[in-house]
Amino acid sequence: MSADMEQWTFPPKFDDSYFPDAKSRYWFPHRETMPSGDRDAAILKRLQEVCAYAYENAPFYKRKWDEAGFHPSQLKSLEDFEERLPVIRKSDLRESQSAFPPFGDYLCVPDREVFHIHGTSGTTGRPTAFAVSQNDWRAIANAHARIMWGMGMRPGDTICIAAIFSLYMGSWGALAGAERLGAKAFPFGAGAAGMSSRCAQWLDILKPQGFYGTPTYAIHLAETAIKDGRDPRKFGLRYMYFSGEPGASIPAVREKIEDYFNAKVFDCGSMGEMTPWMNVGGSEQTPGMLCWQDIVYTEVCDPNTHVRVPYGSRGTPVYTHLERTSQPMIRLESGDLTVWENSPTPCGRTYPHLPMGIIGRIDDMITIRGENVYPSEIEAALCQLDGYGGDHRIIITRDGTMDEMLISVELDGNRWSQGEEQHKAFHAVVSSHLHKMLGLRSVVEIVAPNTHPRTDFKAKRVIDDRAAFNEMQRRHEEASA
Amino acid sequence: MSADMEQWTFPPKFDDSYFPDAKSRYWFPHRETMPSGDRDAAILKRLQEVCAYAYENAPFYKRKWDEAGFHPSQLKSLEDFEERLPVIRKSDLRESQSAFPPFGDYLCVPDREVFHIHGTSGTTGRPTAFAVSQNDWRAIANAHARIMWGMGMRPGDTICIAAIFSLYMGSWGALAGAERLGAKAFPFGAGAAGMSSRCAQWLDILKPQGFYGTPTYAIHLAETAIKDGRDPRKFGLRYMYFSGEPGASIPAVREKIEDYFNAKVFDCGSMGEMTPWMNVGGSEQTPGMLCWQDIVYTEVCDPNTHVRVPYGSRGTPVYTHLERTSQPMIRLESGDLTVWENSPTPCGRTYPHLPMGIIGRIDDMITIRGENVYPSEIEAALCQLDGYGGDHRIIITRDGTMDEMLISVELDGNRWSQGEEQHKAFHAVVSSHLHKMLGLRSVVEIVAPNTHPRTDFKAKRVIDDRAAFNEMQRRHEEASA
Repeated sequence: MSADMEQWTFPPKFDDSYFPDAKSRYWFPHRETMPSGDRDAAILKRLQEVCAYAYENAPFYKRKWDEAGFHPSQLKSLEDFEERLPVIRKSDLRESQSAFPPFGDYLCVPDREVFHIHGTSGTTGRPTAFAVSQNDWRAIANAHARIMWGMGMRPGDTICIAAIFSLYMGSWGALAGAERLGAKAFPFGAGAAGMSSRCAQWLDILKPQGFYGTPTYAIHLAETAIKDGRDPRKFGLRYMYFSGEPGASIPAVREKIEDYFNAKVFDCGSMGEMTPWMNVGGSEQTPGMLCWQDIVYTEVCDPNTHVRVPYGSRGTPVYTHLERTSQPMIRLESGDLTVWENSPTPCGRTYPHLPMGIIGRIDDMITIRGENVYPSEIEAALCQLDGYGGDHRIIITRDGTMDEMLISVELDGNRWSQGEEQHKAFHAVVSSHLHKMLGLRSVVEIVAPNTHPRTDFKAKRVIDDRAAFNEMQRRHEEASA
Repeated sequence: MSADMEQWTFPPKFDDSYFPDAKSRYWFPHRETMPSGDRDAAILKRLQEVCAYAYENAPFYKRKWDEAGFHPSQLKSLEDFEERLPVIRKSDLRESQSAFPPFGDYLCVPDREVFHIHGTSGTTGRPTAFAVSQNDWRAIANAHARIMWGMGMRPGDTICIAAIFSLYMGSWGALAGAERLGAKAFPFGAGAAGMSSRCAQWLDILKPQGFYGTPTYAIHLAETAIKDGRDPRKFGLRYMYFSGEPGASIPAVREKIEDYFNAKVFDCGSMGEMTPWMNVGGSEQTPGMLCWQDIVYTEVCDPNTHVRVPYGSRGTPVYTHLERTSQPMIRLESGDLTVWENSPTPCGRTYPHLPMGIIGRIDDMITIRGENVYPSEIEAALCQLDGYGGDHRIIITRDGTMDEMLISVELDGNRWSQGEEQHKAFHAVVSSHLHKMLGLRSVVEIVAPNTHPRTDFKAKRVIDDRAAFNEMQRRHEEASA
């Protein structure tokens, strides 16, 4: 069946002159809408090719897999893939590059075929270098153009890229996609003093259709423009796509951006190592993010066993490149937290999807009465509720020998002012919704809007006083002894 | 003869798979070493094509030339070109874009063929947008790869681009050239807080052969690296090429950079509007900058008449694109100041050259006894002298009815300490050298090193007290009347 799939080859080959029919919703109609079972069969075949390639060309994978007792010839099903192949972690990449500088022993092409070098910021310790071959750059450009087409952008549109151009792959991938799409790329960048005012001036002059950046920056840009006497709604933006942080899937943040610019907001983005990072990315008709499985194979996995969780469950994305050959990532653990679904999508694409985007990090996990709870999951659940006042606090304490979780939730001003009936109704909704989402009961308290002090995106919303409780109890026992 | 010239067509066509013989000093041996008269004949033919193209496609040029009474059919010689075609100025471009936003009525391709948008910073008033078509981007990449080959860089080299990626064309042109050269491009960028330390860290890891930035930034980077405990000489850089400011042709700055990094320093760069801006750029064997005339036709002109000055004279460069079609610049006045020569070059290229690079701006000009003098010319002349202590001041005053120029020049510490004989000898050398360079006598004073307070690159070195003198005299006469 892979013969039917548009430009589906390994090593990848791309026709850079290809464009879909101007009226088509899809860049590759067949690849995007085929029955998912057929796609999975094709993906398995591709995974066999990718694994054989990596085993042969990357001592890194040979070593890892030999240690795990896996050989590519043993790969007969997607279950083999998740059960027999170990995940790799960012620390594995750092160690490899430290031992085999600068690109590690997972560089699968000759050194002189490296076309671009980017990397992690390495604010703590050794950074990781991304060595991208020219063919991989084309793979990135083609994948991103395809997903941007799915968002609604078209050849001839002007697309402003307002994120720093440096190590960070976000801006470069967005640019490569805009170029391949036949758009007018306006790579304004970001990061230096005074750039936001000037960016707003240029948006006013150019009236671009598309915008890429981080959610935080888009809000800052709108506020700067307003301070300068400009109306961001007059920039005429239609499509704003984001990565680098999960804000674009948080309703409050998304709505704020949509309101500032009167534009449609799309979330996307996996990891710099994984670029094309739009492999998880929204489409014009489908909220949240689709997993474009024929570009990068995404498995949402149990964080401990690294086996896929059922659709409807939460887990951590594990990513595998299907179209890159210079430093292919095979089962790279993201450490992110998401919920995946496989219901039909409004856009008609037959991909699994992440309706809430990326909702946090697995290492934020806390354990309550033996159940794993992610504060970001509580936040995502509350954000789905009408009437949520915008902030909350989670207090974990110990009542006797039992962990207790108290969630203090703000109600919005309108409903708060309608009196106690409304408070009670909201209390019931929150309690039952959280019970369903978390699989455990919590004590819910409804409070007035603005009860909890606002800080920033990374507000400290969890107060765990069990350690203090235990310490007090220990002292008390010692004193009594 | 243009049939013999490698890839010499209009509209330009490029073979992106072309590379010269690995041992060749030249990218295009014939185009670079042909007799200059033959090249001038080919350039005239190309100018006829470019002018006909612009007249037909750009209302801007039609209007300007109609007003000046010029029609492309009248162009029969390079003298016609300089005498009949008016220069255009940056203000003309701004006015055109203000009347015909966003790209002005000198955009010669359909709007949707625009591939990249960059521009001027517009810190004062309306910025100017550069609309670059995909074919023009290829022209830029091919021209820059060719000149970087001339500097000594080769496919497979790693090239770090440490200048901000935004409106500014310097970084993008350097990147496009590195990509076309088949180098490993490391577009690190610059401009955000903390980037210099990280750039130094990456240079230590990657050991690149090439580096692009501004001279000021290279010095800052070396000083940051040293503060961080790194040795910039251990980065292993071999080729450092610069634009954005004239420092790389100022001996003191060039030597400082060469000493910090133990690398060869190249100056290049014309104007953002003119990209490929390396059209004036150094080669491995020839100091200063060559005018790569078959890429961009450079005329060094009298600032008033805009007719070429004889070789050996100073003037202002006026630039004309020969390989760009989206917004071709035809006789764009730079406002820069230089001296051009046409003597044989050590590298064997038959181009005119600018041995001192760009030495200042024509609007810095001061008039002394009817002679035009450029402070930057004095600085350049002093920098050529052994024994120059690194700073000087120019004091212009009025002695009776005559302008007088006093030049106070530092001698270096070594020679200063050798006593009065040396002071006198240096005085004689400075006086005669300046007389020859400026065509007028000045009063020279030799002072100890570090007499003049150091500020920065744009040190205020000229003190003109004639206005104060005249004002005093006027008051004196009024009082006496």
